[in-house]
Amino acid sequence: MRKDYLLTPGPSAVPADVLLSMAHPIFHHRTSRFQAVLKETLARSRRVLMTENPVAIMASSGTGAMEAAVANLASPGRRALTLEGGKFGERWGELCDAFGFEHEAIKVEWGRAVDPGIVEEKLAADNSIAAVFATQCETSTGVLNDIEALGKIVSKTKAVLVVDAVSSAGACELRTDDWNVDVVCVGSQKGLMLPPGLGMISVSPKARALVEATENRRAYYFDLVKAMKSAAKDDTPYTPAIALVIGLNEALKMIEEEGLEECFARHRLLSKAVRAGLEALGLELFAERPSESVTSVRLPEGLDGAALVKTLRDVEGVAFAGGQAALKGRIMRIATMGYCGKYDVILGLGALEMALAKAGIDIELGAGVRAAEEVFLKG
Amino acid sequence: MRKDYLLTPGPSAVPADVLLSMAHPIFHHRTSRFQAVLKETLARSRRVLMTENPVAIMASSGTGAMEAAVANLASPGRRALTLEGGKFGERWGELCDAFGFEHEAIKVEWGRAVDPGIVEEKLAADNSIAAVFATQCETSTGVLNDIEALGKIVSKTKAVLVVDAVSSAGACELRTDDWNVDVVCVGSQKGLMLPPGLGMISVSPKARALVEATENRRAYYFDLVKAMKSAAKDDTPYTPAIALVIGLNEALKMIEEEGLEECFARHRLLSKAVRAGLEALGLELFAERPSESVTSVRLPEGLDGAALVKTLRDVEGVAFAGGQAALKGRIMRIATMGYCGKYDVILGLGALEMALAKAGIDIELGAGVRAAEEVFLKG
Repeated sequence: MRKDYLLTPGPSAVPADVLLSMAHPIFHHRTSRFQAVLKETLARSRRVLMTENPVAIMASSGTGAMEAAVANLASPGRRALTLEGGKFGERWGELCDAFGFEHEAIKVEWGRAVDPGIVEEKLAADNSIAAVFATQCETSTGVLNDIEALGKIVSKTKAVLVVDAVSSAGACELRTDDWNVDVVCVGSQKGLMLPPGLGMISVSPKARALVEATENRRAYYFDLVKAMKSAAKDDTPYTPAIALVIGLNEALKMIEEEGLEECFARHRLLSKAVRAGLEALGLELFAERPSESVTSVRLPEGLDGAALVKTLRDVEGVAFAGGQAALKGRIMRIATMGYCGKYDVILGLGALEMALAKAGIDIELGAGVRAAEEVFLKG
Repeated sequence: MRKDYLLTPGPSAVPADVLLSMAHPIFHHRTSRFQAVLKETLARSRRVLMTENPVAIMASSGTGAMEAAVANLASPGRRALTLEGGKFGERWGELCDAFGFEHEAIKVEWGRAVDPGIVEEKLAADNSIAAVFATQCETSTGVLNDIEALGKIVSKTKAVLVVDAVSSAGACELRTDDWNVDVVCVGSQKGLMLPPGLGMISVSPKARALVEATENRRAYYFDLVKAMKSAAKDDTPYTPAIALVIGLNEALKMIEEEGLEECFARHRLLSKAVRAGLEALGLELFAERPSESVTSVRLPEGLDGAALVKTLRDVEGVAFAGGQAALKGRIMRIATMGYCGKYDVILGLGALEMALAKAGIDIELGAGVRAAEEVFLKG
C-alpha cells in the first residue's frame, strides 16, 4: 500500500483545492471569462512578489523566465555579472553564453553565499556591466543569497539586478520593490504550489528601458516588450496554459488568505525545525546561509547517499532530493516549500531517522523529531 | 496553510486512485459496462471477505447492512444474543428492539472483549437462540473480539453468527468461511478506503435458509432474499451507488495487489507501533484485546480530552477520534485503517506529543515516535 510524500525542492505538493480548480472543464482563453481570471491572477502575482512592476505569466518552466531575462538584455557592448554558487547560478552563465551576453562569472564555493562586497567592487571597476544575474535560493546547495544587500548595491549603478527566485518565491521573503530588484524570474512548481509549466517574470521600469534599448534582441516567444505590453492589458502574447493559470490563481489566493508575512514566517519556522532536527541527529548542515525553502545536509561519511535517497523515495514513498553534480551522494536536500506543514517535517525526519538507522548509522531514534517538536512548541 | 490528516476510525483516508476512479463521468447502471464492473467488484469482495458466500452491495451505511441482517432474521419465537461491549454492540440490541427480535444482551464492560465461553453457555441453555450478533472491532472502545472462537461455538448450534465487521474488514484478519461466520456486515468508509455510502453483506447458506424461513419479514429495501438473488446475477435490486461501486472496485484491487495477508500484516504492524508509541509516552492503553484498525488510549487525568481532540483536528489538521458516551473526554482513538502507512503513525504521534506537552502534560517529546520507529525497524 503505497503512500507518497513529496519533500523535494520542486515539484512540491499541490493542494487539493488547486488540483480541483485545474480539473474543471477547459474553456477558451480569448474570452472575458478567462481574461477576468488572468487579471485577478496577475494582480495577485504582483502582490505576492511584492511589486508594482508588471508581471508576465508564460507557458514555460522557470528556466524559460530566466531565458527571457537574458535574451532580452543581451546586447553588444554590454557586460554582465553572473553570481555562480551552484547549479542554478551556473545556469545564468550558460544562458549568457547561449545568447552572447559577455559576462564575468563570480564563482562561489558550493554551499557558500555570494559576498555582496565583491559585486560592489566589480560594479565599481567596470562601467560596462549592465546586469547582475543572481539566485535567491540556490536550490542545488540550499543557500539563500542576500538579495536585499545586492539590491542596495546594484540600484546605485546603471546595472539591473535580475533574480532567479524560482525556488524562493512564495516561500522566502522577497520584497521586489523595497529591495530594488529589477527582474524576478519564477517557476510554478515550488513555493507557488502548482505543477510545473508556468514561468513568471516581473520587470522594473529601469529594466524595461534597458530591454527596449537592446540591439538585435534574440527573443520571440520570450519577447519581454511584447510580454509586458500584453500584461498591461491583462493578456498574454501566446496561448496561455489555461488550467495552470486557473490553478495559479487558486494557489495565490491561498497564500493571500494565509497572509504573505505569515507565509514567510511559516517557512522560517519549518526550515528552522528541519535544521534543528538534522543537527540533533548529529548531521552537519551544508549551507552557509540556509534557505527557508530547502535545507541541505551533509550525509555521514561512508554512507551511500544516493542509495539512501533512492530507497526513501522508491521504497518508503518519502521523496527528498539528493545532491547534484559534485555533491551527488554527499548531501541530501529537504524541501519546506509551498504546501508544507509541521507534520511533513515530523514525518520526513522520522523517515530519515529510520533510514539512517537501517543503513547502520549510529543515531538516536526520535532525537530529530524531538528537536523539531521543540522548535514548533516555541513557535 | 491548512493540511488535513484523517486518523479517525471512519471515514478514513481515500487514495487518489480511488477518488479519481469515482470522478469519471457517470454512466448508466443498466448496461453491460456497469454489470462488468459490478461483477468484478463482487468477486473481489468475496475474496477480500474470504468467503464463497454471495456478497451483496447496497447503497447504505454500514448500519444499513446491520439492519438487513436483523430485519431478515427476526421472526416470532426466535431469540437472539446481542454481544454488547460498546456503542456498536449496543446497536445490535437497538436494531433487535426496532424489529421485534427478542434478544438477550450480553453486556461487557466497555474496553473488555466478549468472553466466548459465556456465549457457549447461553447457547447450551437456550435452544430458541437463532442468531448471535457480534462485533469484530468495537470501534467505540478499540476492542477486537475473538470471532474465530465465536465461530467455533456458534457453528455447532443451529444459530447463525452475524458479525459487524464495519471497522475491521480490509484491515483485521477476518476469515469468513474458515471461521464459520454466517453473515458479515461491512461499511465502505473504513478499511475499504472509500467515502461512506456503501454497505456490504455476505450470507451463508445456513443464514439464507433461516432468512427464507423468517415469518413476516419486515424488509423491502434491505430484503436479503432479493439482494442475494440479484447478487447471484451480478446485479442489484435497486439503483446502485454507481461511483462508489467503481471506487470500491479500485480500492479492492489495491488491497488485492498489496495481498490480503500483507494487508493484515501491515495493520498489525501499524497498530503495534501506535501502541508502543502511546505506552512510551506513559499513556495507558484502553482495550483489553486491541484492534489492529483502531487503538484507544486513556487520556491523562485532569486533561480536557475533548478539547485536546478538537484542537488537534480544528487547529492542527490532525483528526483523531475522542471517546463516545461515557468515555467522552476520557479516551482518544487513533485509527490505522485502510490507506494508512508508517508515516501517518509517525506524524500522528508527533502531533499528539506536541499537543500533550502544550496541555501541560509531562511527557518526553519524541519518545512516542522513537518507540514507533523501533517497532517499524524490527518489522
